[in-house]
Amino acid sequence: MNETFPNWLKQRANLTPNRLAVKAENEELTFDELYKRVQNRVKQLISHGVKRDDHIGVLMKNSVDMIEVIHALFSVGAIAVLLNHRLTNQELAFQLSDAEAVSVICHEELAGKLGEKVNVIVVDHLKEIESPVYIEEIEEFKADQVATIMYTSGTTGYPKGVLQTFGNHWSSAIGSALNLGIVQEDRWLLAVPLFHISGLSILFRSVIYGIGIVLFERFDAKKMNRAILEDGVTIVSVVTTMLNQMLVDLGHNKYPESFRCMLAGGGPVPKDLLEKSLTKQIPVFQTYGMTETSSQIVTLSPEYSMKKVGSAGKPLFLCQMKIMQNGRECSPFEEGEIFVKGPTITKGYWKREEATKNGFTNGWFHTGDQGYIDNHGFLYVLDRRSDLIISGGENVYPAEIENVLLSYPAVQDAGVVGIEDKKWGQVPYAFLVTTEKIDREDLLAYCQERLAKYKVPHHITFLEELPRNASNKLLRKDLRKYLEKGMSK
Amino acid sequence: MNETFPNWLKQRANLTPNRLAVKAENEELTFDELYKRVQNRVKQLISHGVKRDDHIGVLMKNSVDMIEVIHALFSVGAIAVLLNHRLTNQELAFQLSDAEAVSVICHEELAGKLGEKVNVIVVDHLKEIESPVYIEEIEEFKADQVATIMYTSGTTGYPKGVLQTFGNHWSSAIGSALNLGIVQEDRWLLAVPLFHISGLSILFRSVIYGIGIVLFERFDAKKMNRAILEDGVTIVSVVTTMLNQMLVDLGHNKYPESFRCMLAGGGPVPKDLLEKSLTKQIPVFQTYGMTETSSQIVTLSPEYSMKKVGSAGKPLFLCQMKIMQNGRECSPFEEGEIFVKGPTITKGYWKREEATKNGFTNGWFHTGDQGYIDNHGFLYVLDRRSDLIISGGENVYPAEIENVLLSYPAVQDAGVVGIEDKKWGQVPYAFLVTTEKIDREDLLAYCQERLAKYKVPHHITFLEELPRNASNKLLRKDLRKYLEKGMSK
Repeated sequence: MNETFPNWLKQRANLTPNRLAVKAENEELTFDELYKRVQNRVKQLISHGVKRDDHIGVLMKNSVDMIEVIHALFSVGAIAVLLNHRLTNQELAFQLSDAEAVSVICHEELAGKLGEKVNVIVVDHLKEIESPVYIEEIEEFKADQVATIMYTSGTTGYPKGVLQTFGNHWSSAIGSALNLGIVQEDRWLLAVPLFHISGLSILFRSVIYGIGIVLFERFDAKKMNRAILEDGVTIVSVVTTMLNQMLVDLGHNKYPESFRCMLAGGGPVPKDLLEKSLTKQIPVFQTYGMTETSSQIVTLSPEYSMKKVGSAGKPLFLCQMKIMQNGRECSPFEEGEIFVKGPTITKGYWKREEATKNGFTNGWFHTGDQGYIDNHGFLYVLDRRSDLIISGGENVYPAEIENVLLSYPAVQDAGVVGIEDKKWGQVPYAFLVTTEKIDREDLLAYCQERLAKYKVPHHITFLEELPRNASNKLLRKDLRKYLEKGMSK
Repeated sequence: MNETFPNWLKQRANLTPNRLAVKAENEELTFDELYKRVQNRVKQLISHGVKRDDHIGVLMKNSVDMIEVIHALFSVGAIAVLLNHRLTNQELAFQLSDAEAVSVICHEELAGKLGEKVNVIVVDHLKEIESPVYIEEIEEFKADQVATIMYTSGTTGYPKGVLQTFGNHWSSAIGSALNLGIVQEDRWLLAVPLFHISGLSILFRSVIYGIGIVLFERFDAKKMNRAILEDGVTIVSVVTTMLNQMLVDLGHNKYPESFRCMLAGGGPVPKDLLEKSLTKQIPVFQTYGMTETSSQIVTLSPEYSMKKVGSAGKPLFLCQMKIMQNGRECSPFEEGEIFVKGPTITKGYWKREEATKNGFTNGWFHTGDQGYIDNHGFLYVLDRRSDLIISGGENVYPAEIENVLLSYPAVQDAGVVGIEDKKWGQVPYAFLVTTEKIDREDLLAYCQERLAKYKVPHHITFLEELPRNASNKLLRKDLRKYLEKGMSK
């Protein structure tokens, strides 16, 4: 239907100019104020050469600046390539080059992470510029137009750029609204990274619903609890490890009745944590989603959290799911690969036609995750993409770490799996086969240069050989079994 | 983007099977129960020959049956042609023939209104049928697929079928949600006709949001107030005349705090009525919309109702509006024709290519209504389609009445305008030029056979000639002036 939307921020500022848009630690903006700031940013960016259809990297920490820049890029008609600032210089260089980004907008403190191949626009300096540039603000967003690109690895070892359209983000916000409801007084606490879909999706919900964001640069259990207890926050997005720390900090306090949703991503919440949440009046909505589905696509409502422990719930209204095995749809309780369908799902990977083609069958996206659906339509996720490690809410792909390990002298073979960790949920564990003895510290230093901190293995074990099948495919399951045996010793 | 939706009722029954779907005077159904009823209706309809893509008339009074039939037609893949049961046999025959309806589903008491040219399926008899028909239920609705056809007249005198797609209805429900919010406990009182877009749109909101309908066959101030006071109703759709009667019936009572929206269509609500509503805790949302916009497209929130008396408000989030005059966009406060744009707007009129072509410019729909927008973006509607009469919430088109009057022997010329009426808002007033003296009662009897009751003129005045301009166009403004003078005498 070739649908278009009125420019979201402009329309929101027109409809409800005086409602709170964002409240950060040191400032508060209404939608009208935010829109005026963004109009100024648009001028600044155009005067720095940013043009329609440009791919522009965004290397920033959660901040009002970052919200302004993202909206401004949409108003210019440029595509925002959202970069994880925890990545190493090498990882960033790869993503920027792959994305064909012509410029990167960054905070000054992060500029050192960028090489000389790309035009760097330091947002802190932009503030001083006031130029009389003629702006032709984008009045309408097209549903099938790419708004953002986010990198995710998968099994290939090299990150792929996920294309997220305005239609994807819109449908995600609407699907979530039909599940969680919309209340004009809502305030959504945003302490997960804006460069991840979990954070970015809150920015879209804010402007589409007309509700305020309470913004934090980073997770801080004490400050977040204070915002919930004293500052009218009604919804918070977290990963399990954050929820745990918030409950510890909360002590004997309870959340106010107006608090209506703790949206928890990154795997099922353990039963004891759910029980603790119940006693503190915290309705936990567990979700399952990924960069390719533009945030949550399956959600478990609190009314089912104790009846369906371990389930990820049911799809959003606009979405569908099924379990497939060898081209056949599975019966209830039968295990297979989780397929999902709906308007929140990416149209593919940037410049990766093969990966895009392999990722879909008749419009259904193959998540690569294993699971089953019970006889009442609830999804149970058994294993994320067989090899995915989720560490403190960040996705860690073993193949990416293995690639780096294999590039180190004397490393002949490498295999990485996740191991349970009290603080982070999971951390990477590396198994190596080497041709000579190597120094553990040297190897870790090498990894730290090339991999974001959360990807660097926490443990290394040296083996004679790695378990591989006849076609030489690494058997990560066997490595995990090895770990379980080792731990039970 | 060629968007599809999962079958709305099926998805809703899958997601929240146990929530209330509809509560009528004698029965209550959950979404799961409603879905099972509809599955049975699908079998019944198929066994009566209803097929995918058929145009099927629906001539029913508000009832659970009617809700079932509408959903069932969508599940079969047929298009529902919604018929106003207040129309005369002749008017119905015209619409059914124009719409190329192959069958009409009707309540037994209304079957007498149908001729022999069309296959009549009496829903009351269907109940007995239980047949083992194989059903291939429609699993997905396409956004650009026509779901419903509703007739509206306009200036031509002959009603035109407005094509409403699934995408139109979806966008209307979502636009309304972004304005009014969604609360899981909502119950929407439906006492306006389901054959009008004001009623039908509530059916869609119910299944898309997962909220209950409290259904009434017809308007009854006392019963409706009781439902609000005792039965958890939080939202009601009314026209001004209904609101007035409800306030009178309410006496010294007040609505509960949980009551959150009185959605009032059919012209601005008079100031004294707004003031009375305020004292009784009734938040009045005034709306402007039409069959072609699939219900409300502009709404005034209660926070502005006293500051912007007479305004229709601002567009829904997905929609845009502007005022045009001679192909030029007007400045604030400048009067012109109201143009609207957005995904809720019809793709055109059934088999009326010319009317469709003339109705749009670059995707903007010409409402035919006059108005202006103030400097804060609020719309003021000055005059509905110059000649439109709104009587008790029904649209009455003078040209249609004039056509009937002109067909009466000895009537040489006829002009119809609306006159204020305490009970109905407006009623039709006819001016006639005749070649000989005619009997008033005979003429009215003639009209009653050919026109729905609310279209039959309440007053007739005989004149020597009617005011017409050089190109012989009737000057209704002058007729209205004549009335004003007459009344001030």
